[in-house]
Amino acid sequence: MKSKPAAYTLSGLFTDLYELTMMQGFFALGHNPEVVFDMFFRRQPFAGGFTVFAGLETLLNDLTSLCFSKDDLEYLSGLDLFKADFLEYLSRFKFRGDIYALSEGSLVFPQEPILRVHGNLLEVQLVESLVLNTINFQSLIATKAARIYLASNKGIIAEFGLRRAHGKDGALSATRAAFIGGAQSTSNTLAAKIFGIPVKGTQAHSWIMAFASEREAFKKYAEVFPGNCILLIDTYDTLHGGIQHAMEVGLQLKKQGISNFGVRLDSGDLEYLSKKVRSELDKAGLPEAKIVASNELNEEIIQQLVTRQAPIDIWGVGTNLVTAGNDSSLSGVYKLAAKKVGNKMVPTMKVSNNPEKTTNPGVKQVYRFYDTSSSPIADLLTLESEKITSGSVYRFYHPFFDYKYFELSDYQFHKPLLNLIMEKGELIHNLPALAEIQGQVLKELEQLDDTYKRLINPHVYKVSLSESLKKLKFEFLLKNGILNRSSG
Amino acid sequence: MKSKPAAYTLSGLFTDLYELTMMQGFFALGHNPEVVFDMFFRRQPFAGGFTVFAGLETLLNDLTSLCFSKDDLEYLSGLDLFKADFLEYLSRFKFRGDIYALSEGSLVFPQEPILRVHGNLLEVQLVESLVLNTINFQSLIATKAARIYLASNKGIIAEFGLRRAHGKDGALSATRAAFIGGAQSTSNTLAAKIFGIPVKGTQAHSWIMAFASEREAFKKYAEVFPGNCILLIDTYDTLHGGIQHAMEVGLQLKKQGISNFGVRLDSGDLEYLSKKVRSELDKAGLPEAKIVASNELNEEIIQQLVTRQAPIDIWGVGTNLVTAGNDSSLSGVYKLAAKKVGNKMVPTMKVSNNPEKTTNPGVKQVYRFYDTSSSPIADLLTLESEKITSGSVYRFYHPFFDYKYFELSDYQFHKPLLNLIMEKGELIHNLPALAEIQGQVLKELEQLDDTYKRLINPHVYKVSLSESLKKLKFEFLLKNGILNRSSG
Repeated sequence: MKSKPAAYTLSGLFTDLYELTMMQGFFALGHNPEVVFDMFFRRQPFAGGFTVFAGLETLLNDLTSLCFSKDDLEYLSGLDLFKADFLEYLSRFKFRGDIYALSEGSLVFPQEPILRVHGNLLEVQLVESLVLNTINFQSLIATKAARIYLASNKGIIAEFGLRRAHGKDGALSATRAAFIGGAQSTSNTLAAKIFGIPVKGTQAHSWIMAFASEREAFKKYAEVFPGNCILLIDTYDTLHGGIQHAMEVGLQLKKQGISNFGVRLDSGDLEYLSKKVRSELDKAGLPEAKIVASNELNEEIIQQLVTRQAPIDIWGVGTNLVTAGNDSSLSGVYKLAAKKVGNKMVPTMKVSNNPEKTTNPGVKQVYRFYDTSSSPIADLLTLESEKITSGSVYRFYHPFFDYKYFELSDYQFHKPLLNLIMEKGELIHNLPALAEIQGQVLKELEQLDDTYKRLINPHVYKVSLSESLKKLKFEFLLKNGILNRSSG
Repeated sequence: MKSKPAAYTLSGLFTDLYELTMMQGFFALGHNPEVVFDMFFRRQPFAGGFTVFAGLETLLNDLTSLCFSKDDLEYLSGLDLFKADFLEYLSRFKFRGDIYALSEGSLVFPQEPILRVHGNLLEVQLVESLVLNTINFQSLIATKAARIYLASNKGIIAEFGLRRAHGKDGALSATRAAFIGGAQSTSNTLAAKIFGIPVKGTQAHSWIMAFASEREAFKKYAEVFPGNCILLIDTYDTLHGGIQHAMEVGLQLKKQGISNFGVRLDSGDLEYLSKKVRSELDKAGLPEAKIVASNELNEEIIQQLVTRQAPIDIWGVGTNLVTAGNDSSLSGVYKLAAKKVGNKMVPTMKVSNNPEKTTNPGVKQVYRFYDTSSSPIADLLTLESEKITSGSVYRFYHPFFDYKYFELSDYQFHKPLLNLIMEKGELIHNLPALAEIQGQVLKELEQLDDTYKRLINPHVYKVSLSESLKKLKFEFLLKNGILNRSSG
């Protein structure tokens, strides 16, 4: 299937009003040149060392289905901002641009374009909000999931954030992205159905409280789900009652030859309790019983528990995974990189007094350079028109300081990361299945040097400019009086 | 309209798997008593002094539309967890429970039930995830909006968070909630259409960069939108170029008798720049020109700018408003409060070694007590069966320490806050329009003593237990060995 038929249509109104008013402006002025926009972000979320690129399939499907209904157009008409001829244009709107992107599941770094949108100014402007909404959120959550997965020492992560997620799609998209980043299952049944993700669950305190006693509640649960019996042991008192009542059931199941028994801890000190509970289970002859832990876990808490050798087999992570906790947004932006003037694509640049807010001008490609063990060394942003050949020595220029560079010669191979995936509004390649995307993340994480994967104060992966791109950028700055050569 | 016809159906699969497996368990055991669940939260978001209750209308509409499609049932059937008779039950599922709730837009506080769900155990269990997902998120964002509104000294807040929101509904619901909490407009065109919220926007850097010069870009914008001309002046250099080019246009418009001109600052030091820009505008004869400020604003930054008298007229707030910034979830929970045993509703309680994780047992009502100026003094949780009469003296017991209480006699009036809004699955009252809900928030904020509204370290509003409820709770604790009278 090259082009999936859209199962729904997305309203063209899912955009910031200013995209529509700017479109009206360009339309009225007859100013609709071909343009290229880059999506990129300026800093790593969670002060981490990498970001997982996610949301591409969702975005491409939405772009295919984007249109304005009669109802949408009537609404716009009532705002007294839009003229009839422009609304008529919108009534026929279909996105027919080209998209170049990294493959979904790639590790990405600040400053580099992760998506390039080519098309006419009106259509490319319209989709800005949608591109950013989709990619920012899913990449944020996939990154959080990958951090949690690494913190657990590649353990089993069960996502169950539905109740704290940001609305319905905040939950559905988060589940998709969490799986991409390394979660093994979700509790969100609808997301599991839509995306084909394994769905798992245990039981709530209400199950226990709905019966006359904890003991009865556990026994009844085992009656109904003997082969899938993870008992929540902290409703009343974990160590004095909970674990004993659970073990009674576990031993009974074992006698019947049924395994897959376990307990869940959802409060209290998880190191202390997991060690006590493990010891009780082992003493009772239930060494194969699993311990599931939950309760506001995040990557820092998990890493600490792993370091302290807490015997936890499965990590249930909700809130901090699906909302991203205390860093709840990826600050991706979408900036004009080039526009057609006459017959020529001319680079454009947002100049700023703040070097970090300047953009990199022109139509660009990202090359990743690898060492002999296929571990990435650094990324080089080049102009699309540059030829990057194998075996050559390349200068990697610092993106903000034009006098800083290093030379790279001892790389094994390199490859361009931005590839055409949508042409004139149509998908031109099959998209990978979700499990393949997760596979790509896990493989890229494996290949990435450990120093970039530290949770705190990681090594900064270098994203540099080619000599040509550096020249172009600093010419812009000089021309705009930002770079004052006499003062250095 | 008492019952809005649902414009869509919500899949019953939008729930955690364990709700469905517990339902299957209860169903198989023939255990389906009438129950009452409370939704409440344990701590204020943002370490603030209040929470705005939001999301009720969304929830009620979803509850009305909740059902299982053939497709949903086939999916469940394929999981090998559910039996045919239970799936047949789900195929006929319709939520027919009762909902008691505070009115949407009420200020609420930790420990008190903000929603009470009555029904049979199966249906009440199913909707847990939906209740929490909806109310947690919208209340979080409405609260953030109210904090931002207060920080701006009741100024004009323009929400434009679409590009950083958590997916589509993370954006749509956030816009609804932000408006409830005090935002005046949104940039999200689809949300504006759906919810009838004023939609506003200015222009992006791409407008400026799409023309040969900033000067030309401004002039062209004024040609197309003379009456709605807010110019973004920081694409190249705010004070050397941006403001001068904008004033040229502003003066031209003024000559033509057109007002509503302004400028937007989106980078740099907003205090420094707004003061400089204000002074330039005033000197040029444009004292009525508005200054809009944006760039990762939150309530702390806004309060500081207001205190420093930065002459900013309109606050554009995106990321931190729609994602809630560094406190990205409200930790609302949903707990069994009572169940029918024989013919009697029997209180239930989750006991815990951690006093803050114990629940308050029984079917409860929340009474708010007010002083002579209609300012709330404290909330009293009572058993539903208690009579709270006017003029009596009441003891307000601390929710965790049974020896702590105060007596309240000098109150003017009190009222019960939980009211029946849905009966047997049907809405029984008209729901207020969104603007009315916002009105309620602004009125309640006005009446709330300022000490509760401090952004940092606010006065803690008291939520107490009635004598009867306190007795019931501590009897439970004694019975479960948690409260050891001999050790105090």
